[in-house]
Amino acid sequence: MKAKDIVYVNGSFVPRAEARVSVEDRGFVFGDGVYEVLRAINGRLFAARFHNERLKRSLDGLRISLRGADTPERFVEIGRQLLKDNDLVQGEATLYMQVTRGAATRVHNFPPHDVAPTVYISVARFTPYSDFARDGAPVISCPDLRWGRCDLKTLNLIPNVLASQAAKERGAFEAMLIRDGVITEGAKTNFLGVVDGSLRTHPCDTHILPGITRTVLRDLARQLGIEFDETPIKAEEIPRLSELFLTGTTTDVMPVVTLDDKPIGKGKPGELTRRLQRVLADSMASDGD
Amino acid sequence: MKAKDIVYVNGSFVPRAEARVSVEDRGFVFGDGVYEVLRAINGRLFAARFHNERLKRSLDGLRISLRGADTPERFVEIGRQLLKDNDLVQGEATLYMQVTRGAATRVHNFPPHDVAPTVYISVARFTPYSDFARDGAPVISCPDLRWGRCDLKTLNLIPNVLASQAAKERGAFEAMLIRDGVITEGAKTNFLGVVDGSLRTHPCDTHILPGITRTVLRDLARQLGIEFDETPIKAEEIPRLSELFLTGTTTDVMPVVTLDDKPIGKGKPGELTRRLQRVLADSMASDGD
Repeated sequence: MKAKDIVYVNGSFVPRAEARVSVEDRGFVFGDGVYEVLRAINGRLFAARFHNERLKRSLDGLRISLRGADTPERFVEIGRQLLKDNDLVQGEATLYMQVTRGAATRVHNFPPHDVAPTVYISVARFTPYSDFARDGAPVISCPDLRWGRCDLKTLNLIPNVLASQAAKERGAFEAMLIRDGVITEGAKTNFLGVVDGSLRTHPCDTHILPGITRTVLRDLARQLGIEFDETPIKAEEIPRLSELFLTGTTTDVMPVVTLDDKPIGKGKPGELTRRLQRVLADSMASDGD
Repeated sequence: MKAKDIVYVNGSFVPRAEARVSVEDRGFVFGDGVYEVLRAINGRLFAARFHNERLKRSLDGLRISLRGADTPERFVEIGRQLLKDNDLVQGEATLYMQVTRGAATRVHNFPPHDVAPTVYISVARFTPYSDFARDGAPVISCPDLRWGRCDLKTLNLIPNVLASQAAKERGAFEAMLIRDGVITEGAKTNFLGVVDGSLRTHPCDTHILPGITRTVLRDLARQLGIEFDETPIKAEEIPRLSELFLTGTTTDVMPVVTLDDKPIGKGKPGELTRRLQRVLADSMASDGD
């Protein structure tokens, strides 16, 4: 056990082992809440503004209203405090922020207005996936069983849990999800690929989460004159993929070298993937908050 | 506040206000668990065996393994104890049983085997919806945004929460969900209707929860020689509905008299609905455990 392991719950900084919520919390009984995960490198949070905007979008999507002084910006400040309190201002760490609709007698519809949201914030040491970043990762494909509002980052994560577990059991790093014959995204990441020389990925509609790293990379690619084509990759185009990679807050740009045990392209990280990996790394090195 | 309000959490009987779980519980961060709600009338639980079987199916579906002496049957016994401890052995009450994948450091894939599931059981006073049962209830229709395994009774309930809230805001008792042009079920109930003289409802596939009351009523109907046609009602058939009703553990057979503010049939409870309502009531009066 670490000497320090302090989290934040509803106004209090408490040891993780003592941090508890009511059994009537709507997070616990309905998964009724939203969250964000941010990357902290040497105490600097990457793309915090984008994460704050997305947290607001998710809260609005579920119609959860923050109260009093609570704002995503304040949650990030609490996160910075937690990084200090837990000796995580050097090296790699993650910041987790979660808001639920609060604790109330269990009924499906919203609780009375005087029930305040529950806020839970924690930080953790993080070890980047350097081997997969260098050599490329294996992934599997799975049917995308998720609901119709994947653009909201909610706590209803059972399909993601089951797909992640399936990946783990098959020795893969991630599960790539397929809905209605197209690649949507991963269980925890976005997927991008090169088909016939074009960089393609699913557009930001209700079937994918608008990934922060995906957005940052899209802007970087366009600045470099690399076309970023938001035409989803069809399952039938998979054999023609010359490159495949995934993006995410903790994965950055990660090459994918096998899908369902079959090699992608030449079975090693592709040229465009490598280039975008470097471009993102440079941006992250210079662009923390 | 009630004098007694005791719930069960992980081996302990504690006052509800003190009943808490870890912020790392997978129920709280992933909605990673399942549940059942049972009806208790004068201390007798209705269809407990069916609820136990469904709880097992849901646990198997999510691959959550109970440990030691924990079984659905034991949870029901704990529920009976709670009914006594909370003075709920007379009149109407509900029993709620929930199992999550336990508390562990947050990663999507399953936690190590030594992490035991979290068990939460509680009871509550319940007042039947007598007015709606007598006069019929208003309902609204909503798109069915849920995931692809609605046959599992999981804690990923955000779409149900949002549909229930939409119903409440429009003065309706329940939201009827429509997917791919057919009525699937309600946010918390099953829907059955009479089209051209035939009793119809959605079949038990991955798009609906196999309701216990629905199953009981199906068997009762067939015993009476009433055909129970599991051909889903198409949205385009709605104007031809002569009767519509919903079923559920806390709703029994409840007539529906308006849908989106338009009358169903003659705008009052239908003949077959009334007959099935009586048949179910008789069965419940004689058939508690």
